[in-house]
Amino acid sequence: MTNITCKGFKAAGIASGLKKNGGKDLGLIYSEVPATAAGVFTNNLVQAAPVLLDRARIKSGRCQAVIVNSGNANCCTGDQGMRDAVAMTRFAASGLKISEDLVLAASTGVIGQPLDTEKIKTAMPELIKDIKPDGIEILSEAIMTTDTVPKVVSRQGKMEGKLYTVTGVAKGSGMIRPDMATMLCFVITDIKISHDLLTETLSAATDKSFNRINVDGDTSTNDTILVLANGLSGAKVENPVHKNSFQMVLDKVLTDLAKMVVKDGEGATKLVEIIIKGALTDEHAYKIADTVSNSNLVKTALFGEDANWGRILAATGRAGIKIDPYKIDIFFDNVMIAENGMWCGEKAEIEATEILKRDEFAICVDLNMGQGSASIFTCDFSVEYVKINADYRS
Amino acid sequence: MTNITCKGFKAAGIASGLKKNGGKDLGLIYSEVPATAAGVFTNNLVQAAPVLLDRARIKSGRCQAVIVNSGNANCCTGDQGMRDAVAMTRFAASGLKISEDLVLAASTGVIGQPLDTEKIKTAMPELIKDIKPDGIEILSEAIMTTDTVPKVVSRQGKMEGKLYTVTGVAKGSGMIRPDMATMLCFVITDIKISHDLLTETLSAATDKSFNRINVDGDTSTNDTILVLANGLSGAKVENPVHKNSFQMVLDKVLTDLAKMVVKDGEGATKLVEIIIKGALTDEHAYKIADTVSNSNLVKTALFGEDANWGRILAATGRAGIKIDPYKIDIFFDNVMIAENGMWCGEKAEIEATEILKRDEFAICVDLNMGQGSASIFTCDFSVEYVKINADYRS
Repeated sequence: MTNITCKGFKAAGIASGLKKNGGKDLGLIYSEVPATAAGVFTNNLVQAAPVLLDRARIKSGRCQAVIVNSGNANCCTGDQGMRDAVAMTRFAASGLKISEDLVLAASTGVIGQPLDTEKIKTAMPELIKDIKPDGIEILSEAIMTTDTVPKVVSRQGKMEGKLYTVTGVAKGSGMIRPDMATMLCFVITDIKISHDLLTETLSAATDKSFNRINVDGDTSTNDTILVLANGLSGAKVENPVHKNSFQMVLDKVLTDLAKMVVKDGEGATKLVEIIIKGALTDEHAYKIADTVSNSNLVKTALFGEDANWGRILAATGRAGIKIDPYKIDIFFDNVMIAENGMWCGEKAEIEATEILKRDEFAICVDLNMGQGSASIFTCDFSVEYVKINADYRS
Repeated sequence: MTNITCKGFKAAGIASGLKKNGGKDLGLIYSEVPATAAGVFTNNLVQAAPVLLDRARIKSGRCQAVIVNSGNANCCTGDQGMRDAVAMTRFAASGLKISEDLVLAASTGVIGQPLDTEKIKTAMPELIKDIKPDGIEILSEAIMTTDTVPKVVSRQGKMEGKLYTVTGVAKGSGMIRPDMATMLCFVITDIKISHDLLTETLSAATDKSFNRINVDGDTSTNDTILVLANGLSGAKVENPVHKNSFQMVLDKVLTDLAKMVVKDGEGATKLVEIIIKGALTDEHAYKIADTVSNSNLVKTALFGEDANWGRILAATGRAGIKIDPYKIDIFFDNVMIAENGMWCGEKAEIEATEILKRDEFAICVDLNMGQGSASIFTCDFSVEYVKINADYRS
């Protein structure tokens, strides 16, 4: 693991009692100086109170702290929910002695139940006392819900000789689909960058990462990605070359986190890249990749390690894009299982079945029509997924 | 069970060896005289050979026999697949001594493997010898794949004093979504009706039945509904009043079959009607009903008997239709669990949980915006579904 500390940032995570099992459920990120901030939020029309609050506050382009809880999504909670989201930020601001407007909030967990802010208020002094430069690691545990592993990625870059760090933390293993998910992601960096450029680079990085993954086809009410850049490393983004250089580092951090999220998908045992190529346009390819990566029949076959290419072809055929089934080739990694829409025979089947036993592999569907392509990371769909989601609230 | 025989129709079902387990896998429907015929087929761009064959032959508006196999879908099988579909009809035509053009074919089962027509050829004499007036009951077993129960519905109507019968048989329990599914449905009737009117009434009945059900969100390559009307009862459809009267009987047969299909959905333990009302238009309501009925998170919660209305609201919010979450009321049967987008409290929760223990109930989402409404039948999503589909080919 690279050094995950960014100059001037501190974080912490503790148990406040919101989670029934007593696990860590409250986290705080703090920058010694107000940072430039940008955010991407869910497109679901049902949006949690903290999402609505952050959308309004982030217009200022500035943020100094993020308070986040797991165990309750503070969603479908009405006016009281909004008051509770504001209260979370007030407790943090008051303890940190900064302006309430500079604090953003995030929540994840069950929808539709009132958030017990008294627990957050009571826990705040301990949380603030705990913040430290490498605290992001502990925060990554405090934001977990059905996640089985914490997710932290850190990369360093150099700008005009000055070293800077980009560290990201994410949670989310259900409700994952392009347009994000019940997914929270916080990125801190000590680079200096304008609000507009930070917004642009975040948007581009999101399209390449979190909008290219799928666990279960549901999208959520609480999806949030926040980036805070406090400039304390001395590295600055001042021209297009700098911007491209920073973009590559940010892309890498978000892409790695997105893959970690799919790999830790609820009940998932495999990470599978669905690659569509030879489409007339990239948009066509993306639409087919979305349909294949979201097919329950494809995903249950992956779980069963069954080279059921017919289901892949059938999903391709219902994506709403004009294709010619008898032009299509299908590969599992380097093994061609179907050529011109037909089975390649027993030998290919045996080889493909070996590929399917791997933890990670790619499925490539070549439409042989044009130059358009797209890829989405997905996971298999297991008995465990159903068990997790049937029992989630109990 | 009503009388399922239609005048002049015979049917049979036998084991030909296509199914590895030795079960019945070959069926035949025969009318003593050429019948008027109409069909509805899958919208998937990947279409099985028998679907392509039937689409071409049914243009004549006439059919005297249907040969159907389970155990192999004869899909993604190229030119050989088309030759095999034609061969199936030739074997039947030759044995029945009728024109090959009057025979339609249907297949269901695994995609992408060659169909062993030798087995069909060998079994044909026995199959033809077996046909009898009430043979549709046995045919209903021969078309089952992962179905756990055969599905036959029969209704009688009267037209100008003349009694007629409409008998339908269906299979299909996975790959079920609006736009049909790996779903085969054959309807025979002894009424006399023109090809155009039969096509119109079938299309209307399909929209109200098989296009209103959802098991797993996948649509298939083999979906077929065929209706054969041989006129031998003496009842005739000759004017709009007759047409409406016949439409009601056909609607009822197809709706009952569609509900039987969902109820027997792979791994399903519950039949749930998703009703959306108060939408601006019926189309809006339908789109939301489709999204909710297809949400894995909603369906796993149903399996867990968890009144997780937040997931229902979240699915409503991602359907692509403008809604106001804080206007929405949600009911489980007659129990209001959420009012104006917020939880109705502990008492409602306890009552709703009781409703969820039932085998059949309705979920109603009232958007409180307008007069548009729609409903879709769906089922829960169980551990068993995943097991069935992970192991399907092995």
